[in-house]
Amino acid sequence: MSDGTVYLVGSGPGDPELLTLKARRLIDEADVVLHDKLPGPDILAEIPDDKREDVGKRAHGEVTSQQYINERLAELAHEGKDVVRLKGGDPTVFGRGGEEMLYLAEHGVTFEVVPGVTSAIAGPEVAGIPITHRDHASSVTFVTGHEDPDKEESAVDWAALAAGGGTIVVLMGVTRLPEYTAALVEAGMDPETPVAMVERATREGQQIATGTLATIVDARDGAGIEPPALTIIGDVAGTRERVVDFLAPTETTDD
Amino acid sequence: MSDGTVYLVGSGPGDPELLTLKARRLIDEADVVLHDKLPGPDILAEIPDDKREDVGKRAHGEVTSQQYINERLAELAHEGKDVVRLKGGDPTVFGRGGEEMLYLAEHGVTFEVVPGVTSAIAGPEVAGIPITHRDHASSVTFVTGHEDPDKEESAVDWAALAAGGGTIVVLMGVTRLPEYTAALVEAGMDPETPVAMVERATREGQQIATGTLATIVDARDGAGIEPPALTIIGDVAGTRERVVDFLAPTETTDD
Ligand SMILES: C[S@@+](CC[C@H](N)C(=O)[O-])C[C@H]1O[C@@H](n2cnc3c(N)ncnc32)[C@H](O)[C@@H]1O
Ligand SMILES: C[S@@+](CC[C@H](N)C(=O)[O-])C[C@H]1O[C@@H](n2cnc3c(N)ncnc32)[C@H](O)[C@@H]1O
Repeated sequence: MSDGTVYLVGSGPGDPELLTLKARRLIDEADVVLHDKLPGPDILAEIPDDKREDVGKRAHGEVTSQQYINERLAELAHEGKDVVRLKGGDPTVFGRGGEEMLYLAEHGVTFEVVPGVTSAIAGPEVAGIPITHRDHASSVTFVTGHEDPDKEESAVDWAALAAGGGTIVVLMGVTRLPEYTAALVEAGMDPETPVAMVERATREGQQIATGTLATIVDARDGAGIEPPALTIIGDVAGTRERVVDFLAPTETTDD
Repeated sequence: MSDGTVYLVGSGPGDPELLTLKARRLIDEADVVLHDKLPGPDILAEIPDDKREDVGKRAHGEVTSQQYINERLAELAHEGKDVVRLKGGDPTVFGRGGEEMLYLAEHGVTFEVVPGVTSAIAGPEVAGIPITHRDHASSVTFVTGHEDPDKEESAVDWAALAAGGGTIVVLMGVTRLPEYTAALVEAGMDPETPVAMVERATREGQQIATGTLATIVDARDGAGIEPPALTIIGDVAGTRERVVDFLAPTETTDD
């Protein structure tokens, strides 16, 4: 019996219609779909129960370790199974896709990465914010707001980001919002720079809060923004108020 | 008669299976699909001829102006038509989506942005490169390598990018590769930093070249890399050689 293939598949930001045709087909054809909670309830509800394997469950308060997931993927492939490892958004945007790729290659498993729509782009867009703009932003940076507890120093150079002048999109950055907005102002960014936060983009419970580097912490608290959410920092965030009245009503919940 | 809606829809990097389910549905339901060449031949071939309107054609050597496209979108919507404006990759990743959003809102047209898989993420992935990695890259920046001929100074701060330490993905950066690789080294980046270029990701004629900041110009010339292509700069670009033997063979053409 020959080995199976592992497909590292992005599921998009949560709306099942934002799956790619390829993701849909691979889920349908897979022997096993390994997933955690990040794809969101609507997408998970569409996976047949007999092929789902939830590796995001917490046993004794512990999240399944990445090591377990890596080993399980290789084991299933060596049993001849075609496996979809379903990941929220895109697999390599802070998704541990890189670690899984390296582990699989080191263990002789054939794999394919199937890109998905990342929340880091879809989130701003559903809020009426383009992440680049010819006149305002010739670059966009996706950055994690969540420090790896294993690292001593902040791996993110907020001062360099402030100097770059492009759009900044922070993932996993709800809790540490006060720290990094302060760091950006400290590094010379205008406190009046527009900022928006988008929680649960394209999902039930979508919420948006807007402000500036100086006011967004209060706006977050006022709107009750909770993870999963994105923070969009830069002039482009100001686009929302100019277009919001003409956004087609996919936004079911809003500020 | 009520006005129609304009859908600014991302078509993904070129493989028709990387359309989202929503893009597929909206194309099928639209009265008119306005497009240029960027979605690529395979996707354009799937649009029924009677609803296609090609605004990428050159008349007298001129590319259709953005102003014409903006006006045409508003005109069709005011005639009651539902219009898909189909854009390569994602609509707001250097795609003029922001300009179209603002024009439509200013002219009273209801619109929706439908995110797509950007080539800036899919391109690296099909080459075996994750754009972030827990140990190597806590940020990724998408930047344009193409200077706006209307701008006097370079809008891109390559020195700040070099200082940031994250992955850099350059779009529209084939011709000016010598300039910006030199600028990054000048700003202190290690000339041994891994670099990869991916031409026509997920399409017929996909090609990949790899090297370092010091060698990539020669590698580009040796492989004959031409636009459309991406340049991926950073430690993550070194992942390719560690995994390439186990990449499932979707890569039809390769180096
Ligand atoms: C571990 S990262 C994974 C990101 C994912 N790979 C992607 O491309 O969207 C999880 C973070 O993504 C963001 N996120 C994911 N889905 C989201 C959504 N629907 N709305 C807002 N933020 C989302 C949040 O910042 C969350 O903390
Ligand atoms: C005007 S930009 C539009 C980008 C698009 N909105 C996206 O998200 O992919 C055009 C540039 O995108 C990149 N590009 C688009 N499709 C590509 C593909 N299939 N392979 C490699 N690069 C591509 C190239 O750098 C090209 O010069």
